[in-house]
Amino acid sequence: MTTTADRKASGKQAYRVIGTRPIRHDGYDKVTGRARYAADVPIVGLLHGAMLRSPHAHANIRSIDTSKAEAMPGVHAVIIAKDLPINDGSEIDWGQVMANPRVFAELSMASRKVVFQGQPVAAVAATDPHLAREAADAIEVDYEALPPMLDVLEAMKPDAPLIHDTLTAREIQSRIDRGQDTGAHGNIASHLQFKRGDIEQGFKDADAIVEREFTTKMVHQGYIEPRTTTAHWATDGHVTIWTSTQGHFGIRKSIAELLAVPESTVKVVPMEIGGGFGGKVYINLDAVAAVLSQKTGHPVKIAMSRQEEFEGGGPTSGSYLWGRIGADKNGKITAAHIWMAYEAGGFSGSPMGSGAMTGLSPYDLDNLLVDGYDVVVNKPKTGAYRAPGAPQAALIIEAIVDELAEKLGIDPVDLRLRNVAREGTRAPNGVPFPVIGCAEVEEAMKAHPHYAAPLEGPYHGRGIAVGSWQNGGGFSSATLSVNSDGRVSLVTGSVDIGGSRPALAMQAAEVLGVEAEDMIPSIGDTESVGWTGTTGGSRTTMSTGMAVVAAAEKIVEELKGRAAVLWEVKPEDVAHETGVYVNTKSPGDRFTFKELAAQAMLTGGPVTASGTSNPRHLAQAFCGNIVDVEVDPETGKVAILRYTIIEDVGTAAHPSYVEGQLQGGTAQGIGWALNEEYYWNEGGVMANSSFLDYRMPTSLDLPMLDTVLIEVPNPNQPFGIRGVGEVSLVPPLAAIANAIHNATGIRMSQLPMSPGAILKALAEKNAASSG
Amino acid sequence: MTTTADRKASGKQAYRVIGTRPIRHDGYDKVTGRARYAADVPIVGLLHGAMLRSPHAHANIRSIDTSKAEAMPGVHAVIIAKDLPINDGSEIDWGQVMANPRVFAELSMASRKVVFQGQPVAAVAATDPHLAREAADAIEVDYEALPPMLDVLEAMKPDAPLIHDTLTAREIQSRIDRGQDTGAHGNIASHLQFKRGDIEQGFKDADAIVEREFTTKMVHQGYIEPRTTTAHWATDGHVTIWTSTQGHFGIRKSIAELLAVPESTVKVVPMEIGGGFGGKVYINLDAVAAVLSQKTGHPVKIAMSRQEEFEGGGPTSGSYLWGRIGADKNGKITAAHIWMAYEAGGFSGSPMGSGAMTGLSPYDLDNLLVDGYDVVVNKPKTGAYRAPGAPQAALIIEAIVDELAEKLGIDPVDLRLRNVAREGTRAPNGVPFPVIGCAEVEEAMKAHPHYAAPLEGPYHGRGIAVGSWQNGGGFSSATLSVNSDGRVSLVTGSVDIGGSRPALAMQAAEVLGVEAEDMIPSIGDTESVGWTGTTGGSRTTMSTGMAVVAAAEKIVEELKGRAAVLWEVKPEDVAHETGVYVNTKSPGDRFTFKELAAQAMLTGGPVTASGTSNPRHLAQAFCGNIVDVEVDPETGKVAILRYTIIEDVGTAAHPSYVEGQLQGGTAQGIGWALNEEYYWNEGGVMANSSFLDYRMPTSLDLPMLDTVLIEVPNPNQPFGIRGVGEVSLVPPLAAIANAIHNATGIRMSQLPMSPGAILKALAEKNAASSG
Repeated sequence: MTTTADRKASGKQAYRVIGTRPIRHDGYDKVTGRARYAADVPIVGLLHGAMLRSPHAHANIRSIDTSKAEAMPGVHAVIIAKDLPINDGSEIDWGQVMANPRVFAELSMASRKVVFQGQPVAAVAATDPHLAREAADAIEVDYEALPPMLDVLEAMKPDAPLIHDTLTAREIQSRIDRGQDTGAHGNIASHLQFKRGDIEQGFKDADAIVEREFTTKMVHQGYIEPRTTTAHWATDGHVTIWTSTQGHFGIRKSIAELLAVPESTVKVVPMEIGGGFGGKVYINLDAVAAVLSQKTGHPVKIAMSRQEEFEGGGPTSGSYLWGRIGADKNGKITAAHIWMAYEAGGFSGSPMGSGAMTGLSPYDLDNLLVDGYDVVVNKPKTGAYRAPGAPQAALIIEAIVDELAEKLGIDPVDLRLRNVAREGTRAPNGVPFPVIGCAEVEEAMKAHPHYAAPLEGPYHGRGIAVGSWQNGGGFSSATLSVNSDGRVSLVTGSVDIGGSRPALAMQAAEVLGVEAEDMIPSIGDTESVGWTGTTGGSRTTMSTGMAVVAAAEKIVEELKGRAAVLWEVKPEDVAHETGVYVNTKSPGDRFTFKELAAQAMLTGGPVTASGTSNPRHLAQAFCGNIVDVEVDPETGKVAILRYTIIEDVGTAAHPSYVEGQLQGGTAQGIGWALNEEYYWNEGGVMANSSFLDYRMPTSLDLPMLDTVLIEVPNPNQPFGIRGVGEVSLVPPLAAIANAIHNATGIRMSQLPMSPGAILKALAEKNAASSG
Repeated sequence: MTTTADRKASGKQAYRVIGTRPIRHDGYDKVTGRARYAADVPIVGLLHGAMLRSPHAHANIRSIDTSKAEAMPGVHAVIIAKDLPINDGSEIDWGQVMANPRVFAELSMASRKVVFQGQPVAAVAATDPHLAREAADAIEVDYEALPPMLDVLEAMKPDAPLIHDTLTAREIQSRIDRGQDTGAHGNIASHLQFKRGDIEQGFKDADAIVEREFTTKMVHQGYIEPRTTTAHWATDGHVTIWTSTQGHFGIRKSIAELLAVPESTVKVVPMEIGGGFGGKVYINLDAVAAVLSQKTGHPVKIAMSRQEEFEGGGPTSGSYLWGRIGADKNGKITAAHIWMAYEAGGFSGSPMGSGAMTGLSPYDLDNLLVDGYDVVVNKPKTGAYRAPGAPQAALIIEAIVDELAEKLGIDPVDLRLRNVAREGTRAPNGVPFPVIGCAEVEEAMKAHPHYAAPLEGPYHGRGIAVGSWQNGGGFSSATLSVNSDGRVSLVTGSVDIGGSRPALAMQAAEVLGVEAEDMIPSIGDTESVGWTGTTGGSRTTMSTGMAVVAAAEKIVEELKGRAAVLWEVKPEDVAHETGVYVNTKSPGDRFTFKELAAQAMLTGGPVTASGTSNPRHLAQAFCGNIVDVEVDPETGKVAILRYTIIEDVGTAAHPSYVEGQLQGGTAQGIGWALNEEYYWNEGGVMANSSFLDYRMPTSLDLPMLDTVLIEVPNPNQPFGIRGVGEVSLVPPLAAIANAIHNATGIRMSQLPMSPGAILKALAEKNAASSG
């Protein structure tokens, strides 16, 4: 834990507010149940919606008969895909994948075929949620069931049945037209390749080569609050949506596209969010609720059940991962070849690209080849999940590097440090890194007492891994207004998922020379603040912070002018230092921020300013893990004994909440590594769609997750802040796999490394060694 | 009705948006019942509050026994005045009148004596409103009843019993200390005097002198929506108030004072307002609801009944008015002496000052003496009511001028024009007027066909009057954000009572070169927009408009920069004309506003700006009335046959809504003139506290009220806009009195000129003429 005192002691820039730990502004509201979530939207005349979802993972829709549902008393409307305005009869261009709002429309309600179990096919609005459910279940859909394609490698075969029959030809032609034939074909929606140097020569130069494969399963973000949305399509055509989202401006755009209305006739009000982790970035229920509202003239609320969340939400990809990495005897990595196939789900758009981008980012490599494939399978369309795609890539790479170190007899941190990426190192895509803290993280890992602590028993093992994640940039807006009592209202467009209210307020407070408690942060809807990008991509504290700083600097200039009025000097004769304004012509003349705020109405009126950010230079985050496990050879259960998370956070705006981000991501990684998985029956139906059967770690499963905040300031952010929210989920899968190997001698090749999988692997190992 | 075409034809500046008549942005919501008013605040765990109010107009409170109420199941809290944090035991300085938050506290709950019937003495929070009412009624208050002082002249007598025993000595001493002994004494809270020239000589120079008196009764603003407020005092000390108010920033200040908390720990959310007319400027229920919330831990809503609104709201003053005006035979007014006593209600603070300021404003006078008295009586504490105090003053003055014209044989408009106030004329307080339209209004009256139209029957009569009202200035804030589809969000802090959303949006649209329909106006709460003054004083369209224009001009500058990015020229090389940006270096290069909006994310990110206004130069509004009445000699009923309202509106931002303001104020004036009154029994108990017994005009009672918009632009506002909301209530009382005289020969001396009063006057006239 780094504090301002530490920072001062270390000679780094000391801040007055940044780096302290005030209580979050929304803390009391959330603890006392006062905070209003999407399910709390109270509105007169509300109807309740329910979705009918496909029981098949793959089927053509022959017909839908809604007559029985429509006849039920209390049912106000039943809609199917053609009722979405975007479905105007024109053919869908499946080749345009994520940018294609028609795909969002298909995810909202399938128009001709269903491509995953849980895909909506119809929706009902009724006077109460139970009746809506009953009516939805009364809709009769005539399906032509098709064999589901559930295996990513099977789906890639040239002769595999096509899930989207128009995909291949259109996509290939489109890419050829753009001179970008990257090999998309069949169910492969896209292929990304990063290539550098000569890997064949690299492998020839290697003294040791390790080749491994991994399969991983789909996992869900596991947020507490299922998606909920309420829509009101008013008589004048204006649509208001109250929803649980990470980014209301992006949602507004999608809603407008699906409803075929101008974007700003839609108002999206972001409610408090009960977890998102990337899963609440994209539209899901919103347009359906809006159309139901239009048809009924009432506001309509739709809330997902937990089962619907699992089946119809947006989990992250299962994957097939293969890698081959070689190094010379000095530990210099001479070649790395990574081949990864990610499940996109029923429509294209897995996070393969980010996996391909980030997996090798901790390394300075001359020879690399990374192949990534985005593959359509009959599973839920994947969404974003905290550092999307990166944990899988880190899993295969970090497991291989671990084995390489073992083979070469080199300490695994040393091996990484001998190849460590630094400022100027080219990322896998060839772009040089700005100032990064990868080496500092690895050096801290090596120096940490945990790394040298003895293991205390049989079947105890220690693993390490490092991971990387790009920080998103993007635009944000903020407005500050000074109150007469010296407190300052701050409106941004950034949904607060994990403490961005205080993190943003503190940046304003630092500039203004006031306390964090003097700030009143709130989140504006799409009509009350300037355009602001989604809270995701580890961008909010960094990028919205820059908009806040821009606005705060305008306030400081304005207050200089106000002091100048009172002193009858020029504004440029007024200096500002930490909330005190000084008359440089008469340095005894001083006004505090609060004094000037109190006199605002006498010096020119309200003091308010807006700022925006447009960061052009991204930051990169790095995180290292040291984890000790104990494997129970009787049950196969893996216990986490000790966990140390070491991350370069740039500057920790609010260390407690930064630590919470590190711990949260790691806990999710532990669940992903050891227990979480979408479990499918042969028909592609999820068999464990409840929190009882989908096993996430609880506080009882985990020890205290220790954190070390490394601060290598981001030179492109006023306070050196980097994004911290995602990278902590990157190394755990690999670190735990490596620890399990260290404990058992087994190199696992699949996730989750559940008791059953471990027992099976132990049995195979015993059979092999006794055979 | 003036249109843009008219303006063009008249050679005045033509605007593209200003002066058109788009549908108001909130129209559909309000017509369809979707707009959310204070009673619609939905919140989990809500308790309902009820007030116990004094049945006495004047009494000491000996003791309050809340035990029975507290013991009722479902009652969560019972509070009395000492539970308001401001009542910390320190003595109240009654001498500090309106600026004294202790007076607001007494209006919220009486601490030691009640000074009007309906004054709250206790409050209850319970699980439902009926139980709350029942529990409030179970509170036992031991009153020592005192004789009520109900007559303003009686109250002024030196030997009158004192309503506030500490008022006299403190107030007088305080004023003497300030060198301002204005004669306050006894129940006279203050005395204001304007004096100019030598009225004694002026009366000597007069060829005709008229002396008259009038008494008027308290009247209520009569809005549809009774006051309602919901408060939640959260665990962390933050208080949120959802309320029906005209000015949430002002309310916030009062709440903070009564709760003894810093101002910005209070968040006030202004709901849609079902009418205010000045009556919802000041705090009433809010702090009581907040304390009930604090005591119970629940949100608490209090909604007034209609009876409570009458008895415990804030009506406007009854008055005693006396005047003496003299003129020479040419119609030059040689002297005017006006003496007016206004009922303040139970605490000081009548609108006497505004009456004294405005009554003689239409006249350019060398010799005047205006005496105004603010007198405490045992009636409800008066609040603001549309042009507060001015209608009474205009009544006495305009009735006398009418009689003077008759005596001198001069046309009454001509008499006014011979004395008309113009730019540079000193107002009664000595300050010269800026550009005003009084002469233009009077000339338009004279030229109007109505003025020359024949009267069509016996007991038909025509009256005219003119009135004036100062326009408030004050601070406002606005934030604009450009959407990618070219529509623009506009947030201001101005509660929209009568169409300020479109009136403000149109000003932004005019500057930006977009349409009114491209604007998305909304009203920010106290935490989401900069400080903005109350919607009142005819200031909003004028002053908040200036904040909007300031923000819009910043947007234009920003967009010049964006166009410059695209053209690779300097921002100063880009010109803007009506929403089109032109590259002056290559004039064929043009971007529309929408094109630049669509490219914002490619040229620098979100486009958003805040502006404030601080108008230093007030405007003055003038309004003239021509009214035809028919008096029924059998019943005394006065029917309005024809009504023409001629008002200088500066520039009519939205002529339809301006016309609505003129018609609405006039309708209120007609009600005040003919029927409305607080009717007291001898004990000071209101006997007609329902809309059944308090007779307001309905649409069936009134003819179409014709409007003529005179446009003498306000040079201190970018579009020449003046406040239009209030002055239309100033002339009707006098105009109708003059019309009744014209119809019957009777000079009435009291309001309302109800059937009974008319019959009595007719009988007295007949008795006199036959006697």
